[in-house]
Amino acid sequence: MTQENEPIRVGVLGARGRMGQEVCKTINRSDDLELVAMIDQGDWLFNASDAAAEVVVDFTTPDVVMDNLHWCIDQGISVVVGTSGFTPTRLDRVKSWLDKKPEVGVVIAPNFAIGAVLMMEFAERAAKYFESVEIIEQHHPAKVDAPSGTALRTAQIIGEARAAAGLGIVPDATKDEVSGARGATIDGIRVHSVRSMGLVAHQEVLFGTQGETLKLRHDSFDRSSFMPGVLLAIRAVVNRPGLTIGLGDLL
Amino acid sequence: MTQENEPIRVGVLGARGRMGQEVCKTINRSDDLELVAMIDQGDWLFNASDAAAEVVVDFTTPDVVMDNLHWCIDQGISVVVGTSGFTPTRLDRVKSWLDKKPEVGVVIAPNFAIGAVLMMEFAERAAKYFESVEIIEQHHPAKVDAPSGTALRTAQIIGEARAAAGLGIVPDATKDEVSGARGATIDGIRVHSVRSMGLVAHQEVLFGTQGETLKLRHDSFDRSSFMPGVLLAIRAVVNRPGLTIGLGDLL
Amino acid sequence: MTQENEPIRVGVLGARGRMGQEVCKTINRSDDLELVAMIDQGDWLFNASDAAAEVVVDFTTPDVVMDNLHWCIDQGISVVVGTSGFTPTRLDRVKSWLDKKPEVGVVIAPNFAIGAVLMMEFAERAAKYFESVEIIEQHHPAKVDAPSGTALRTAQIIGEARAAAGLGIVPDATKDEVSGARGATIDGIRVHSVRSMGLVAHQEVLFGTQGETLKLRHDSFDRSSFMPGVLLAIRAVVNRPGLTIGLGDLL
Amino acid sequence: MTQENEPIRVGVLGARGRMGQEVCKTINRSDDLELVAMIDQGDWLFNASDAAAEVVVDFTTPDVVMDNLHWCIDQGISVVVGTSGFTPTRLDRVKSWLDKKPEVGVVIAPNFAIGAVLMMEFAERAAKYFESVEIIEQHHPAKVDAPSGTALRTAQIIGEARAAAGLGIVPDATKDEVSGARGATIDGIRVHSVRSMGLVAHQEVLFGTQGETLKLRHDSFDRSSFMPGVLLAIRAVVNRPGLTIGLGDLL
Repeated sequence: MTQENEPIRVGVLGARGRMGQEVCKTINRSDDLELVAMIDQGDWLFNASDAAAEVVVDFTTPDVVMDNLHWCIDQGISVVVGTSGFTPTRLDRVKSWLDKKPEVGVVIAPNFAIGAVLMMEFAERAAKYFESVEIIEQHHPAKVDAPSGTALRTAQIIGEARAAAGLGIVPDATKDEVSGARGATIDGIRVHSVRSMGLVAHQEVLFGTQGETLKLRHDSFDRSSFMPGVLLAIRAVVNRPGLTIGLGDLL
Repeated sequence: MTQENEPIRVGVLGARGRMGQEVCKTINRSDDLELVAMIDQGDWLFNASDAAAEVVVDFTTPDVVMDNLHWCIDQGISVVVGTSGFTPTRLDRVKSWLDKKPEVGVVIAPNFAIGAVLMMEFAERAAKYFESVEIIEQHHPAKVDAPSGTALRTAQIIGEARAAAGLGIVPDATKDEVSGARGATIDGIRVHSVRSMGLVAHQEVLFGTQGETLKLRHDSFDRSSFMPGVLLAIRAVVNRPGLTIGLGDLL
Repeated sequence: MTQENEPIRVGVLGARGRMGQEVCKTINRSDDLELVAMIDQGDWLFNASDAAAEVVVDFTTPDVVMDNLHWCIDQGISVVVGTSGFTPTRLDRVKSWLDKKPEVGVVIAPNFAIGAVLMMEFAERAAKYFESVEIIEQHHPAKVDAPSGTALRTAQIIGEARAAAGLGIVPDATKDEVSGARGATIDGIRVHSVRSMGLVAHQEVLFGTQGETLKLRHDSFDRSSFMPGVLLAIRAVVNRPGLTIGLGDLL
Repeated sequence: MTQENEPIRVGVLGARGRMGQEVCKTINRSDDLELVAMIDQGDWLFNASDAAAEVVVDFTTPDVVMDNLHWCIDQGISVVVGTSGFTPTRLDRVKSWLDKKPEVGVVIAPNFAIGAVLMMEFAERAAKYFESVEIIEQHHPAKVDAPSGTALRTAQIIGEARAAAGLGIVPDATKDEVSGARGATIDGIRVHSVRSMGLVAHQEVLFGTQGETLKLRHDSFDRSSFMPGVLLAIRAVVNRPGLTIGLGDLL
């Protein structure tokens, strides 16, 4: 837990990546935060503990993020994670590490844009009122995973809300389908991943019932849109032990 | 207040209009409701009291709705109102009538579609997180009023939420404007009314902040979309004395 | 070929279906057309020839449409076809039948809405300027085929235009995909089929290049939107021997 | 007229502005172009003629662009203009200057993005098929003019196409309007200007007829989207004497 009036000491993992650079700049502009370590491939994680980082922000890759998390939690450093690829199995492992370090906080968020967080909140709220729902996410063609982490998380949230409301499966008479046309099925929800030059990061949740539809659409036009959410998470995680999924509870 | 297991006795004002006909059909299909009076231009309002209507549904026009409401409240009949044109002055008059009949309930809703109700709820929730917000409503070209009642109500809700959050005016550097280009200003919010053949009833609320936008869009494709909300309001109003604006609190 | 000033004699196959009924009503309202035969399951095709139909409109099903076409062409009756399911193989068979009856005309259109026809024309025109393109079609959940016939035809048109312009494959770095997320691949173009209550018939073609996107979107809200195109095809086919695919050339 | 294989000598006016800087970088990366003069406020226009510029690109402001154009035409230098504010009166003056210098070319374009150029071409083509049409343009809130130059040009194109097709006024029953709700009227077409943080430069043209709508939407996410069009215009203008409005004819 940080002292009053002292800036929070922050390290950044993946500091030379596109998101990492933006995070470093944003921390430097914030009076209540101090950037104490910039770490990337080939650097020692110990740089973070040597610099007495209280929080580490991780924008790395799915293949190294679990090792990073394990090491930080062991060191008693809280973590804000923007890296994707968190399956239920991975989340369970993080929880087991945190059980042994009850004072450490970890925030793992699929999306740090305030609009995306609200989109997920609204999708959860709307789910029980509509028989039909599908997710269409749209990203630049350099993205390697489909669907996006945000879409996966949204589908999971909607699936849980439908189950809690006793809604059955989404109506669909399709019997003659060219393979893939109807998208991926995530927790019972159809998800479509569009990739195109010109796009950045976009998602639409389409709800439908008799005679009407409701669309929730979020558009991220540049990485600056994620910075307010990253700051919010850094400031919250130092006083929030345990695992937090998404920024919804921090708003 | 209605007895258990007895159907609610309902009268419809404007019963020969497009919405009124749909309401009558919907009531006839509902086991817990009984259609006891169908009243339109040239018919006596007393038909509703003679038939012992407990609730009257009013889809008439702005020039007669106030007389209808006054009469119903005097008779002790609760009312569900879908007619548009309710200014703050009109609402104050309805409240003053209800003060003398504390057991009577009135629900006045700008829109009975569940998606529209949620759109307004979400707009209120999102308002404080975005510096920018505008409303674009789109309707068929036979509509006589612009903006729509739903857009006016949404603007009012957003304006109040911004004021409560201490947000200032929406940023806008426009200094060279062809008259009307920037829309109407309702409670500080710009509202644009699009009219086109092929359209039915649509509204988009656009929120924006640094690097991102969030859109809430509702599309009504036919009048059937309003019926679940009308039923909800009829069933609620018999046990809900006083004035209720919008369906938000009934969900 | 029809005589001047005499109405064109039209028969309708699938006359009791939803589209068929609308077509019959539309023909009845047109002074230059005469509805001479309404035929559906269980009726004799000979009713059309007995009534001296010059044109037959076919809105039936993929399993009977080929027999209908063969019979009409044999009888020397021109045909306007709105039934879906026309593969290249089927089109070749229709051509071979027409070779023996050079005076007969057949128009097969995946979509009779003017907006859909223009959407396809514009998609063909835009294709060579954008590295990326995907199709998202959205329909009511009672639809049995995915993608829609219009989407298949649009993909084919775009694929051909890209090939003619020497464009390579659409850029896509996806390597970690939940099966189906990236849609169906039709002639090299990704197609996504969304199904939801509240929807009618909608399609969006998304083009993208560096820093910009262009979207062409068509929305059909009811079957009346197809009638002007059906009339156009009926009037054209009597003077247009051979096979015509789509309404594009008739505009 | 430029010699074969020699790079075209280009000067840039407004070279220190946001668009100007991007144009300079783009010219520097192009083998067939040579950047010979970068001119901004306080610099001499003669720098362009001293450097033997064959083409000048002008991204300045409406208050200086006419003087720039007059000077360039007098000097026999062709011009590509991206500055906005060209009224019919201004265009007539440019034409009168060109009459005296028949070998000089001027291209004035409201938008250099290929998607915007196609949007305008398609809008012109579609106009005669739809009774209803409206334009909704959306930009960042730092924009000073409303509607945008692109929207004004699109409205003009559509207005002319409707007149040529004998279409009357757009249907609109509005009689109770909050001032501005129905937008600005440009050549008979309603134009709505939305301003919001998070937006860059976007425009939608909505066409409607019975039961259907067709939407053409262009989104520019960053200034890089304009560069291919600027290059196209530079290369074309050296061999294209006289005044050319828009890039449509250069595609």
